[in-house]
Amino acid sequence: MSRKYVRFEAAGAIRFGVLDGESVHELAGNFLTTEEQTGKTFALSDVRLLAPTLPTKVMCIGLNYKAHAAERNKKVPEEPMLFLKPASAVIGTGDEIVYPTIARDVDFEGELAVVIGKRAKNLSVEEARDAIFGVTVMNDVSERYYQDRDGQWGRAKGFDTFAPIGPCVATGLNYQDLQIETKVNGDVKQSSRTSDMIFTVDELVSFCSQVMTLEPGDILTTGTPEGVGRLVAGDHVEMTIEGVGTLVNKVRAQ
Amino acid sequence: MSRKYVRFEAAGAIRFGVLDGESVHELAGNFLTTEEQTGKTFALSDVRLLAPTLPTKVMCIGLNYKAHAAERNKKVPEEPMLFLKPASAVIGTGDEIVYPTIARDVDFEGELAVVIGKRAKNLSVEEARDAIFGVTVMNDVSERYYQDRDGQWGRAKGFDTFAPIGPCVATGLNYQDLQIETKVNGDVKQSSRTSDMIFTVDELVSFCSQVMTLEPGDILTTGTPEGVGRLVAGDHVEMTIEGVGTLVNKVRAQ
Repeated sequence: MSRKYVRFEAAGAIRFGVLDGESVHELAGNFLTTEEQTGKTFALSDVRLLAPTLPTKVMCIGLNYKAHAAERNKKVPEEPMLFLKPASAVIGTGDEIVYPTIARDVDFEGELAVVIGKRAKNLSVEEARDAIFGVTVMNDVSERYYQDRDGQWGRAKGFDTFAPIGPCVATGLNYQDLQIETKVNGDVKQSSRTSDMIFTVDELVSFCSQVMTLEPGDILTTGTPEGVGRLVAGDHVEMTIEGVGTLVNKVRAQ
Repeated sequence: MSRKYVRFEAAGAIRFGVLDGESVHELAGNFLTTEEQTGKTFALSDVRLLAPTLPTKVMCIGLNYKAHAAERNKKVPEEPMLFLKPASAVIGTGDEIVYPTIARDVDFEGELAVVIGKRAKNLSVEEARDAIFGVTVMNDVSERYYQDRDGQWGRAKGFDTFAPIGPCVATGLNYQDLQIETKVNGDVKQSSRTSDMIFTVDELVSFCSQVMTLEPGDILTTGTPEGVGRLVAGDHVEMTIEGVGTLVNKVRAQ
């Protein structure tokens, strides 16, 4: 059974909950560690959803859909290409993506992101599934001018607000076969399925766990399909993954 | 006046303190937030020093000494090259660097690292100094086979234990003119001065703050001088910065 977990602010406090249609049932603590409900329920319209997790690291994979590798004129990699975003870049649905003053070309990249459920290291592909708590939507916002120029992507992909995640963490999905779609100002820009990945989600979790200890709440985002494109201040970005929901962010100038 | 702050374990608890010769005066909390001493003093020989900070991010700069750029056959960059290490890679002095099973060529890189003292964004070079709490020693351990092959350095530089920092955080130093030295098994491998940097410490802090919000306890490591070289299991690495002290780590096989 699929469930949707959220982190949210309501009545002046930060809380965790289970999404149930237009209601949010509060949990006694972080959904990573408890299923216990407090008995308190909020109307979804009365809460402010927050980034569903505060990761100790955001692991990102470059070029994991064949058609996107082609549109960036890159060869399909033989192994996953791993880079990091800082936790300071994370925002939630409804928050604004800030277009930096020094930026020239900012792109959206809609992605399926994994939320790690428990501390883990050196997982086999078969074991990887057990370390995954659920999945969410992530926008791997990327500044192309610096990305092409800097060599390393710490600047291009690390600006504040360049890691929107949300709206919830969904469990119990067949995450390797979900529709993924990005709309900008209502126009469909990306429309693909997670079945088109080069490396599967489980392979990527296993790969990263050979390198670094995965911590509960960590994010691993799994690459973007074809159709990436520019954002400008004022744009309204909606990224939807089947069974998860829609991550919504507006873009504003710094 | 220069002071040396440590994080340590003693009598079963994790504590913070001020180093005073062979004594450690315990502080009432993290040295980033309090100067208040508890009145308790430990002998340095009775404590286990820990990584002095648990950063939310580890910002790293590539190629910031001219002679190192030359030895790696790289052009001197026009702007700092920023990349990230995960917090999961951080260890302290006395901890072991684990040589990963999948690694082929692991290098040491002795570096001066800045510890951020307060939340900050968009700092000018002049303002940068105020955001710096102090400095420490960092070994930017790097796996060269994957570094040259992967394009992005998330794997090559992100392995667990690949970010040793310590032994303390020193304040009140003229950090732009300090001797920096690395010994492996007693042989001097790197010997330089921080005055040989391409971009100054204050310039690097300002640069990073244009991109990402700096958080208290964050690490910014400022590049390595010439003389980098291989490590193998069993090696004993000592990195010393004038006025800070010596970061000591042994290498062991995974």
